[in-house]
Amino acid sequence: MTPLTLNFEIAARDGDARCGRLTTAHGVVETPAFMPVATYGAVRGITPEELRGVGAQILLANTYHLHERPGEELIQRRGGLHGFTGWQGPWLSDSGGYQITSLSNRVEIEEQGVTFQSPIDGRRRLLTPEKTVEIQAALGVDIAMVLDECLPPGPKGDPDAGGRIRAATERTLRWAERCLAARREGGPALFGIVQGGTDNALRRQCARATADLGFDGYAHGGLGLGEDAQARVELVSAANAELPHQHPRYLMGIGRPLDLLDAISAGVDLFDCVLPTRNGRHGLLFTSTGVLRLRNARHREDDTPPDPHCDCSTCANFSRAYLRHLLVGGEMLGARLASLHNLRFYLHLLEESRKRIAQGTFESFRREVRAATEDSQSMAPPMREAD
Amino acid sequence: MTPLTLNFEIAARDGDARCGRLTTAHGVVETPAFMPVATYGAVRGITPEELRGVGAQILLANTYHLHERPGEELIQRRGGLHGFTGWQGPWLSDSGGYQITSLSNRVEIEEQGVTFQSPIDGRRRLLTPEKTVEIQAALGVDIAMVLDECLPPGPKGDPDAGGRIRAATERTLRWAERCLAARREGGPALFGIVQGGTDNALRRQCARATADLGFDGYAHGGLGLGEDAQARVELVSAANAELPHQHPRYLMGIGRPLDLLDAISAGVDLFDCVLPTRNGRHGLLFTSTGVLRLRNARHREDDTPPDPHCDCSTCANFSRAYLRHLLVGGEMLGARLASLHNLRFYLHLLEESRKRIAQGTFESFRREVRAATEDSQSMAPPMREAD
Repeated sequence: MTPLTLNFEIAARDGDARCGRLTTAHGVVETPAFMPVATYGAVRGITPEELRGVGAQILLANTYHLHERPGEELIQRRGGLHGFTGWQGPWLSDSGGYQITSLSNRVEIEEQGVTFQSPIDGRRRLLTPEKTVEIQAALGVDIAMVLDECLPPGPKGDPDAGGRIRAATERTLRWAERCLAARREGGPALFGIVQGGTDNALRRQCARATADLGFDGYAHGGLGLGEDAQARVELVSAANAELPHQHPRYLMGIGRPLDLLDAISAGVDLFDCVLPTRNGRHGLLFTSTGVLRLRNARHREDDTPPDPHCDCSTCANFSRAYLRHLLVGGEMLGARLASLHNLRFYLHLLEESRKRIAQGTFESFRREVRAATEDSQSMAPPMREAD
Repeated sequence: MTPLTLNFEIAARDGDARCGRLTTAHGVVETPAFMPVATYGAVRGITPEELRGVGAQILLANTYHLHERPGEELIQRRGGLHGFTGWQGPWLSDSGGYQITSLSNRVEIEEQGVTFQSPIDGRRRLLTPEKTVEIQAALGVDIAMVLDECLPPGPKGDPDAGGRIRAATERTLRWAERCLAARREGGPALFGIVQGGTDNALRRQCARATADLGFDGYAHGGLGLGEDAQARVELVSAANAELPHQHPRYLMGIGRPLDLLDAISAGVDLFDCVLPTRNGRHGLLFTSTGVLRLRNARHREDDTPPDPHCDCSTCANFSRAYLRHLLVGGEMLGARLASLHNLRFYLHLLEESRKRIAQGTFESFRREVRAATEDSQSMAPPMREAD
């Protein structure tokens, strides 16, 4: 089975961190890379041209949402997401499993797949591993994800927790195999997903088994659900040790700027997160000196830009005072300008990371950012979500 | 009293229509001109740079809204609207009177001024003619409007209607005189407002009296409140006959594309209306062949741009199918792209009007647009409103 072109070359290593080039049929992604979230095929309020302008290279689409509206057949008839949305660069889609279990009613997970009630028409639908591969192929993405079973953390001290997580992890592996078998010639590249909850040994075991199945890349799933940041890095590191070095690794749905740098140190290449856009809409701006809560009254008459060190068009043209006025009043322009700034912050952070890895100074970069932005740690915890 | 520079030169006439140049301290406005509505100092979802790009020359701000939030003193300390918002071109503000009577609670209109309850802090406030001039000067606008008493149409057959309208018109004249007396050196230019309901003779009389007071320009107020389009043009024509030809004339809050062309034929130079942005948000797009209701299911798989004859970036980059998907889903990007297109439609319509007046072929242009866009007349009636 030949998928759409996907080639990954590592250009430099710095400890476990690495920078490289992921070549897809729709363009090259310099890694480590951050993927803005375009849930319904659009990053909230931002045009493809603007995304290019702030340095976006690849977007993430949410399969569950697009399956519900407007449906993958309609998108396929428009030439896939590339033809439909105007973003001509690479696309990655999630499999929809996580969204179903977090957003739908009456969800039943069985060996065959996931049954759920559609929020659009109320009908029961079944999503199988085979069906997720088919939907993602119809969306025309460059990279598809396997269907995985992602358990939320159970109640503390739940005696069955270990057993439930093990069962879900084993099912994820069986589904991964079915996804591989369902691939069709010329379809998207396919990434496996490592599960295993917060159990290091189980994560390792799942990583090894997933690697044995042989995917184009590998993701860490089921994280960002309550574990602390240090534990998460260890879980990612443990699994990475079992994954083939020459394939890209993707940490799904994470997270805050320092979370990204920590994961890059552990050898992660790809990220997505709703934080830049969602926080932007809520008036939380990432800056080189920490998080700016722009709705705070102390910015009422602040004529400085959100971040004097930022090169985005929001910082070039608008003051904190004006942005605060727009955000407090619920003006669409405020959400848009804040989102654009936050996206630029993330994409610039990744640009710098690539440079510093190539120079062999990534660890000092990570320390610099941590020292300068410690406030960022007071942000809401990251979540793997649609935007 | 020397206001900020305001100079108006008529370059060409075609019947009663005229094209010209209105020179302000912040730039030149080619007339006839359409002013996008920036209620809170921002056109909903659109940046100043984009407004320039679609041909906007001058923006309208709503004094009542900005007085309530963030307050004119804060804006004044930022260098007025020019410094606060990033729109460096000319600004015109309304006086706030119409907004108070349509949006506030417990409004009392007395000779001294208008008392109302603030929707922000619930306190009673008094807006006098003098205060409106002071607020608009603090906003730093190029053109301010007098406080007028604008009556909504009374119940049909109301025996007192004529008397109430005459009283309001006379009070508008007394307030206009107080506004003139309240001007300060270096403040905004000031436009008088002609009232008189739907009574041609009263409009004429009010126009004559307002002209005798001597303003920098003249507006037609209290229209777009239910009278039919033909009656409105006659009311405007009647008043224009009494206004000095060498001053700009502004039809407030009107309207649909053909309403603008009709008013241009009657000698109007300036317009504002919320329709391009408000209708854009609701998925109603103005096109060279009439109004496109983009939420309609028949556009689900329509890969053509909203208007193949439009040169805006929305039409260059996005299909009806994609825009419909965004608008149906309530995506911010859909409202933004549709608003931008509609603004371009209006501003292009005015560009063409100026050309055709200069060529002496404006009447044939008006007929062409009417013939091509008859559907437009099925749109909701125009309203003088904030956006």
